[in-house]
Amino acid sequence: MQSAALQAALWEIWSNFTQALTPIGHIAQPNTAVAMATDSPITLRVFSLNCWGIRYRSPHCSLRYHMIAELLASEKHDVVLLQEVWSEQDYLFLKKQLICTHPHSHYFKSGVIGSGLAVFSKHNLQDSFLYRYSLNGYPYMAHHGDWFGGKAVGLVIFNVCGLTAHVYVTHLHAEYCRDKDSYLPHRVVQAWELQQFVRHTSRGADLVILGGDLNMHPQDLGTRLLLTYTGLRDCYAETEQFDGCEEGRTLIAENPFTDKKELIPFEKGIRIDYIFFKGSSRVCVKCKLFSTTKGSVPGKPFPYSDHEALSAELLLLPQQTVDPNGAELHSCDTDALAELVDTVTEARTEVKVGLHCAERMRHTSARTGLLGLVLLMLELAIGVVPWLTPGTQQPFPQASFYLLGVLCLATLLSALLLYIFYCTQVKALQAAEDQMHLAVGGLQEKLHGRPLGRPGDPYYEALAFSQPMPLDPEE
Amino acid sequence: MQSAALQAALWEIWSNFTQALTPIGHIAQPNTAVAMATDSPITLRVFSLNCWGIRYRSPHCSLRYHMIAELLASEKHDVVLLQEVWSEQDYLFLKKQLICTHPHSHYFKSGVIGSGLAVFSKHNLQDSFLYRYSLNGYPYMAHHGDWFGGKAVGLVIFNVCGLTAHVYVTHLHAEYCRDKDSYLPHRVVQAWELQQFVRHTSRGADLVILGGDLNMHPQDLGTRLLLTYTGLRDCYAETEQFDGCEEGRTLIAENPFTDKKELIPFEKGIRIDYIFFKGSSRVCVKCKLFSTTKGSVPGKPFPYSDHEALSAELLLLPQQTVDPNGAELHSCDTDALAELVDTVTEARTEVKVGLHCAERMRHTSARTGLLGLVLLMLELAIGVVPWLTPGTQQPFPQASFYLLGVLCLATLLSALLLYIFYCTQVKALQAAEDQMHLAVGGLQEKLHGRPLGRPGDPYYEALAFSQPMPLDPEE
Repeated sequence: MQSAALQAALWEIWSNFTQALTPIGHIAQPNTAVAMATDSPITLRVFSLNCWGIRYRSPHCSLRYHMIAELLASEKHDVVLLQEVWSEQDYLFLKKQLICTHPHSHYFKSGVIGSGLAVFSKHNLQDSFLYRYSLNGYPYMAHHGDWFGGKAVGLVIFNVCGLTAHVYVTHLHAEYCRDKDSYLPHRVVQAWELQQFVRHTSRGADLVILGGDLNMHPQDLGTRLLLTYTGLRDCYAETEQFDGCEEGRTLIAENPFTDKKELIPFEKGIRIDYIFFKGSSRVCVKCKLFSTTKGSVPGKPFPYSDHEALSAELLLLPQQTVDPNGAELHSCDTDALAELVDTVTEARTEVKVGLHCAERMRHTSARTGLLGLVLLMLELAIGVVPWLTPGTQQPFPQASFYLLGVLCLATLLSALLLYIFYCTQVKALQAAEDQMHLAVGGLQEKLHGRPLGRPGDPYYEALAFSQPMPLDPEE
Repeated sequence: MQSAALQAALWEIWSNFTQALTPIGHIAQPNTAVAMATDSPITLRVFSLNCWGIRYRSPHCSLRYHMIAELLASEKHDVVLLQEVWSEQDYLFLKKQLICTHPHSHYFKSGVIGSGLAVFSKHNLQDSFLYRYSLNGYPYMAHHGDWFGGKAVGLVIFNVCGLTAHVYVTHLHAEYCRDKDSYLPHRVVQAWELQQFVRHTSRGADLVILGGDLNMHPQDLGTRLLLTYTGLRDCYAETEQFDGCEEGRTLIAENPFTDKKELIPFEKGIRIDYIFFKGSSRVCVKCKLFSTTKGSVPGKPFPYSDHEALSAELLLLPQQTVDPNGAELHSCDTDALAELVDTVTEARTEVKVGLHCAERMRHTSARTGLLGLVLLMLELAIGVVPWLTPGTQQPFPQASFYLLGVLCLATLLSALLLYIFYCTQVKALQAAEDQMHLAVGGLQEKLHGRPLGRPGDPYYEALAFSQPMPLDPEE
């Protein structure tokens, strides 16, 4: 690895020099403007870990950050993607500790507490961008805390040996109960927005890497949606050499921090953290080595986190000739497209379920608010009686009368706030559903080679609303 | 126009056919995969209007929508960008009216009410994406209403004669008082996020169009930030032929719906609505004709809106050879880069002012909440006394006692909500400031041709925090 690191460092200097000759940001088309600095393979090492950094709540938080800093400083990965770095102080601690090995870093701020996302890099970060998911749990579920975290996907762009790398880090909403998962539509919408963000912002990239805690199993709808749509590939599935937990699990029973009850019915553990990658027509990417920690750290009293850390060694093989019908194209066919249509349709159904729920909650809030208002009016009317007709006594004990008034007011205000909140939820779910509708139309058009009919056309409606999709209509 | 429309329709069919041969979305690199269908000039007509569609509040709302639909159906623009279509019913009305001329449309939903953004297109929309701005006014300023609107930028992608067009529509936070504009940091952050969104999502585009109500004058910081960073060009400034209000104004004194007092000190009016465009190495774009309405509509009793409508005729000249050092590059030099650094630094200062304000408000909320809590505790203590020591009388009249309790509780809750709200504001402003910091570093690196030092390095700190920027340091 040392020679590869030296090589990378030399090319970094060279690419900084060539970059300096390119005058301005928005016009530097990565595919054309910057000459590729090397044709020999480049090794890029990526690390991802959910740090479980809830100060004063996660056990041994400070000590674990010391261990993480030690690991990162010794392993010297090219890029480090961290999640759940909830405290900025902890980020600053890591930044200080890694100033020699990873001089470049970015901390993504969002929501009430922050997104918890941080990136450390050996390579100079050229640009960053953050996308906050439109749906992220409920503020009144304060014990779950996701809403306060402002979950998002962060993008940093850097240059490695003349290649433009777009690196994404994300953390999706947690799954608290798999059987009755009220957050499922939220996570599906987050996965949808994640794939949209990656697709739309990675067009100029030579290399795409996405790492983080998706809180979804490999076969879950959201994971399939993300992978099928973006063409990203799973390091665990593609690696030439693997060293880590069985089936690549990242939340395992052996980890002393894991709550065994939460893993049921997956006694051995689950895989919810990932590193994905994708090359381009300019560079072919292979995963040489993929590893996970295994619950304990040799010589240390406890693991780095309740999640296992992931580490991938990617081999970048620059391609001399830019082939517009490059390797990726050949792997895609009608079957893949049909699968994508099915996945989006499945996601749309899930979003519709969520929409139905949110609309019902909005109605309930409105009705409760109205009830509170009527009761408050009634109270006021009763309160006014003794003032209007002197001599009449207040029929209720004063204490209960005022207490009832406070309760009515509290009900009215809470219902109003909930109503506003559910309005935003409904809008966000509708927006995702509309976009999926449009996407299914576009995909079907590609699949059948002709534009879809207009809304109102029975075939169009069938495509847009039915499931499974009528991939071979009689029409 | 008829022959151009026919030509466009024919090429649309042809490009749909060629597209059908390309199997899947994520691998179709627009610059390479789809062959350009024509080398002859293509005309693309774009329309933008802030519809002022506040139901039951904007005068003649329904009648104006009828007029707008009539105009659009007769003018048959390629793409129509509408803002302030606050009611979905009005969008559906327009959709129904324009089903023959503009069969493809998208309505962007966001926030509590919606984003008010709608796109109608003659061309089949392939994809859509929405980015909600992280800052957008204050919910307690309900009479301004911007917070409830969920301001955003919407992107739709379509294919016109084999060229991939990325069309953006947006509406930024209104300016209510130019002298003491408490929303200025919000609008600057929105402009920052807008340029980020456009830059990062338009990489694969042959043609970029952005239209909407920016609520910023042409020389305002946000407009400069947007144009310098993205390389977008202003139709009004670049058009060969112009027909409209003097200086391209879009909020004019002649419009009977405009509040003359609001225009002071710009008696004649202001220009806050825009259509911007940008070509690529594959297509050269020129603005042939740009026009605005002039306050009144011939034969109608009132104008379409309180804003003037914009209409641009763009000429697309496909270029046979893809020149990596294309036309755009030549227009950029060190001066442009230095100007960009200055603009971002100015924006950063503005964001810092906003951050300071938000932090102060967060402190105030925290203090007020604490006061409410202490008072409530005191009240409870007083209330408990008669229960603990029988025979003691309640020292206060019961009515005032309970009223005070309600007030304390209300103060506590409001302060808590405000505190949470200002935490999100602080995070969003910090996020924008961090990104600007990173961007200035990257730009300076390009300008000086060498990487910046690490944090702690005096030159680095000077670059990052001073204003004006030391463009020629002694070091």
